Amino acid sequence: MSNLDIGNQMHAWARDLFPITRSITGEGVRHTLRYIQDLLPDLRIHGVPTGAEAFDWIIPDEWNVTDAFIANESGERLVDFRRSNLHLVSYSEPVDAWLEREQLETHLYSLPESPDAIPYVTSYYARRWGFCLTHRQRSALPSGRYHAVVRSELQPGVLNFADLILPGEQEEEILLSTYICHPSMGNNELSGPIVAVALARWLMTLPRRRYTYRIVFVPETIGAIVYLSRHWQEMKARTVAGFMLTCVGDERTYSYLPSRMGTTLADRVARHILDTSDCSYDTYSFLDRGSDERQYCSPLIDLPVVSIMRSKYGTYPEYHTSLDDLSFITPAGLSGGYEMNRRCLEALERNAFYAVTTYCEPKMDRRGLRSTVGGAPKMAASTRDLMNLLAYADGRTDLIDIANIIGRDVFKCAELATTLEEAGLLRRSGS
Amino acid sequence: MSNLDIGNQMHAWARDLFPITRSITGEGVRHTLRYIQDLLPDLRIHGVPTGAEAFDWIIPDEWNVTDAFIANESGERLVDFRRSNLHLVSYSEPVDAWLEREQLETHLYSLPESPDAIPYVTSYYARRWGFCLTHRQRSALPSGRYHAVVRSELQPGVLNFADLILPGEQEEEILLSTYICHPSMGNNELSGPIVAVALARWLMTLPRRRYTYRIVFVPETIGAIVYLSRHWQEMKARTVAGFMLTCVGDERTYSYLPSRMGTTLADRVARHILDTSDCSYDTYSFLDRGSDERQYCSPLIDLPVVSIMRSKYGTYPEYHTSLDDLSFITPAGLSGGYEMNRRCLEALERNAFYAVTTYCEPKMDRRGLRSTVGGAPKMAASTRDLMNLLAYADGRTDLIDIANIIGRDVFKCAELATTLEEAGLLRRSGS
Amino acid sequence: MSNLDIGNQMHAWARDLFPITRSITGEGVRHTLRYIQDLLPDLRIHGVPTGAEAFDWIIPDEWNVTDAFIANESGERLVDFRRSNLHLVSYSEPVDAWLEREQLETHLYSLPESPDAIPYVTSYYARRWGFCLTHRQRSALPSGRYHAVVRSELQPGVLNFADLILPGEQEEEILLSTYICHPSMGNNELSGPIVAVALARWLMTLPRRRYTYRIVFVPETIGAIVYLSRHWQEMKARTVAGFMLTCVGDERTYSYLPSRMGTTLADRVARHILDTSDCSYDTYSFLDRGSDERQYCSPLIDLPVVSIMRSKYGTYPEYHTSLDDLSFITPAGLSGGYEMNRRCLEALERNAFYAVTTYCEPKMDRRGLRSTVGGAPKMAASTRDLMNLLAYADGRTDLIDIANIIGRDVFKCAELATTLEEAGLLRRSGS
Repeated sequence: MSNLDIGNQMHAWARDLFPITRSITGEGVRHTLRYIQDLLPDLRIHGVPTGAEAFDWIIPDEWNVTDAFIANESGERLVDFRRSNLHLVSYSEPVDAWLEREQLETHLYSLPESPDAIPYVTSYYARRWGFCLTHRQRSALPSGRYHAVVRSELQPGVLNFADLILPGEQEEEILLSTYICHPSMGNNELSGPIVAVALARWLMTLPRRRYTYRIVFVPETIGAIVYLSRHWQEMKARTVAGFMLTCVGDERTYSYLPSRMGTTLADRVARHILDTSDCSYDTYSFLDRGSDERQYCSPLIDLPVVSIMRSKYGTYPEYHTSLDDLSFITPAGLSGGYEMNRRCLEALERNAFYAVTTYCEPKMDRRGLRSTVGGAPKMAASTRDLMNLLAYADGRTDLIDIANIIGRDVFKCAELATTLEEAGLLRRSGS
Repeated sequence: MSNLDIGNQMHAWARDLFPITRSITGEGVRHTLRYIQDLLPDLRIHGVPTGAEAFDWIIPDEWNVTDAFIANESGERLVDFRRSNLHLVSYSEPVDAWLEREQLETHLYSLPESPDAIPYVTSYYARRWGFCLTHRQRSALPSGRYHAVVRSELQPGVLNFADLILPGEQEEEILLSTYICHPSMGNNELSGPIVAVALARWLMTLPRRRYTYRIVFVPETIGAIVYLSRHWQEMKARTVAGFMLTCVGDERTYSYLPSRMGTTLADRVARHILDTSDCSYDTYSFLDRGSDERQYCSPLIDLPVVSIMRSKYGTYPEYHTSLDDLSFITPAGLSGGYEMNRRCLEALERNAFYAVTTYCEPKMDRRGLRSTVGGAPKMAASTRDLMNLLAYADGRTDLIDIANIIGRDVFKCAELATTLEEAGLLRRSGS
Repeated sequence: MSNLDIGNQMHAWARDLFPITRSITGEGVRHTLRYIQDLLPDLRIHGVPTGAEAFDWIIPDEWNVTDAFIANESGERLVDFRRSNLHLVSYSEPVDAWLEREQLETHLYSLPESPDAIPYVTSYYARRWGFCLTHRQRSALPSGRYHAVVRSELQPGVLNFADLILPGEQEEEILLSTYICHPSMGNNELSGPIVAVALARWLMTLPRRRYTYRIVFVPETIGAIVYLSRHWQEMKARTVAGFMLTCVGDERTYSYLPSRMGTTLADRVARHILDTSDCSYDTYSFLDRGSDERQYCSPLIDLPVVSIMRSKYGTYPEYHTSLDDLSFITPAGLSGGYEMNRRCLEALERNAFYAVTTYCEPKMDRRGLRSTVGGAPKMAASTRDLMNLLAYADGRTDLIDIANIIGRDVFKCAELATTLEEAGLLRRSGS
């Protein structure tokens, strides 16, 4: 399947998932996870009950909503959850009340600087209710009495999340993590889970996987904390690299957010793949973090997790508004986000430490690896690459670092290494 | 007391101390140390006798002078020690002789390039006598006979110095060192001892001191060598950072002179404080050293000692002349030199290693440390700072380094750390 | 002998050696080595027989040639080995055949981009025959029949090489290596062996040598591999630095080719010598390597070997053609290549670790190392250098690194160290 086909397929999944009212708990999350399970049959869906503890956190009540609106005295719905689930502040408590225009004000959220966007607002851990609307709409509300109705439930229930373990030849793991708690928005966040699904399906097609893959779908923050509270010890022991999948669907640019110290294998592979692509990208600091790397990279967990994104959360004007919609993410944008992360996984699969088997340079022409006419002003580029790889194959420098030294990409180096290994000139060494 | 008040007080001390004829030994040093003892009652004044050994050095005779002049045949004093003690080469031997103008020449010192300045000249270790005068004065001396008189004594005596130990909760020490051997000059050197006094008095007001402070007043070079010869082993075992206090009184600029290798805690704190001040500063190399860091940082001693100065010795035209006077140093200049060094001490007192107590990010809103409305485009700056500190509080990175990483100063980081420690989210770790 | 005299002498040797038909084996190599043995009587000439193994390689048949030409039907020699030994592809097998112009084509080598140059071509490890000629000559060959004759022998014989061990006070070795397998060319390669001879003769005149010197003359590649296969273990144990001598005879520029990782003592000394010369130079990457550093620096051998060249092989238009002749190399060019490498050896001989003997600064004036009049605005530069050397003589920083820190060259630092050692203020420390 071509990358564009994959992009189209991902966009079709996004269109299916877009209308669902997701939050950190509730039916919308379960609906979303079941849709993903249809695409990844081995996905395991888990739940932890309200009141359960996860490190410093406690699972809140489950929230579900059936309807919500603000109507005028004529009963006309001026702000209507059924038109956009962004109109309702997530985790709004139930209400059915008549308020004056001024009383209503403290329950309204809008963006004066982006007057046609409905903002995305949540209040998971403090009971309140509120409505989000465009600033244009808010400014046009006349004085008078309004009927505010939220038909929601906040009750003990379950927080859901899911994971998929794809076993590899080694116990060492690569982590992919994404979140499934945002309602109708495209780049942040539907792009994350659908690229995760596409990567998982690609991994499942591989004839062999060296690494074990752990692919995690959680509500952001609380879900990652719950997941880590159950799995951090094995993850800390096994994880060699991890990737947060978020904001991977638009076409504007690429972005790299390093791990806490910026020196892990995940950082090295991400920079190598970005640097050897023909795309420019923005490099952020870990201070610009904002997603579940906050948990994965926290000091006592300290996993090697980076993000390769398209437009980073918090940096584009459509972020966390109704303008981050199905037209902001595109098949080409999604396929770029998919491909850049896929190449990191492929690079890690092919990365290795190699050591030469011969003292001095081997006799290449005996093995058909070099022309027999010497003295020409320039050695063939392919022979030069082979010799360069041999020169640095000291068993302590991995293919990613050798690739950076010799000015080829890691895939080219892996090809060269295979040629040399088959010729008996290299052997795998170390981990 | 405001910094300006402190500046005025320091300048008043400078005016009292200015007229005293100091040298590396003699009554002037004792007079100066007694004045300082009045301000710092716990100051201990020490003496070592002429002939005593200190590493490669031997204490010279004590030098005292009562009068010195060059008079013409009419008995008119043309160069008169009583007008400025800089007129006499320090450690001049006694003389009472009539000389021709040409014979006098080899005993005269002046600065053609600065014709109104009396230079400061010493001859501690070779017996000679000489007079310093402005070049203008020298050029105007007519031919004829002159009466050169130096009423000095060079006799076995004592070399004096002093120290003040301010005990802290820990045995680990911070060193402040300054010198008290220059006659009537302001920036180099009265600024050094008076800023040292002001810092000592500030340290004495602190409700608690974590570190023990060793504040040393010595004649430059020979005094530091004597001091180290008596104390180097304990100082090497205990000193975590040291500061040479010299040239801290004018208003022109700030200067930083690193330790020998430039990587000690003293260097880190000095650079951090200078970088986070709103003042520009000149960075010198250890090759530009010139004061007692020459001894403290010498290879077999190797203490972590830096200098934060205003205009560095040797770089300003008034240096080592009568133009470095009480108008060259000012209350504002002194208070700047005081404050920049004081902030280093305060930073060291507050610096610490911290480690988080929770796995993953803690639940900040439960503790009132974060707003409960999520999804807003920007987290409050204060919350962001707290989260950034938590992200790097791994028990191996001290507050100074964390401050550099997260782009706040160490005092802000210490406040944040206190907030987090009180909330049970951080604990002190390591030294 | 002045450097120019040495340059003239070297050029005279080059003129003697130029006409000899060298290849990787054969009479030409032996003739060349015997000439060198006349200049270096202790040179040991070695041989290994055809069929012998050296790591991954096998010694090929010995090749000797008495005559070779292409003649036209009139018997006129159009391409004649006797005019230039570059006309014959090295290791051409015997032939005596009449060919049509078109059949001849596959046996001809010329350079369209350099129409007056005869290229240098070899075919050591695949049996073929061929002729090299200027492109102008080739274009002018009319159609018709040609008589191609190569009177060569390819028979079991011997591969020759030589070495000279100059014992020093220590077993630690410095390696000089060069190659003697190229026919009539100047910079690449006669410059290499003749500079090696001159360096050896200079080393023999030294009253004492701290290091043992191993000076190696081999056919390139196969010879270095043979040599290493016999000596690598002792060389790996003993070699502290090594220099490939090649392309050291023209006047255009200087070039530096680092070792594999670029951080060895050989790299440090080469960069220091080049940086403190008043010559500019080009820095290459190890990826630009092309001579026997390919063997010496290969991962399992990993010796600290660099090259300081004039115009680097492969970068100048005359390279590997008849234009790299006796006029391309000059006495001045050779003497520059000689001197830059000689200074590296001299620097290594003088390099050492020193540690101060006194705590704090020593009393310099007592030892006549400092003026006794203090307080002057500037210390004498020579005293300042002595004090700077003392400040960094911590027993862990060698003179080359100290020289870089204090901004003097290593020879000046060695002089200063000798002064200080004689004054009892420094002692040698470590290796």
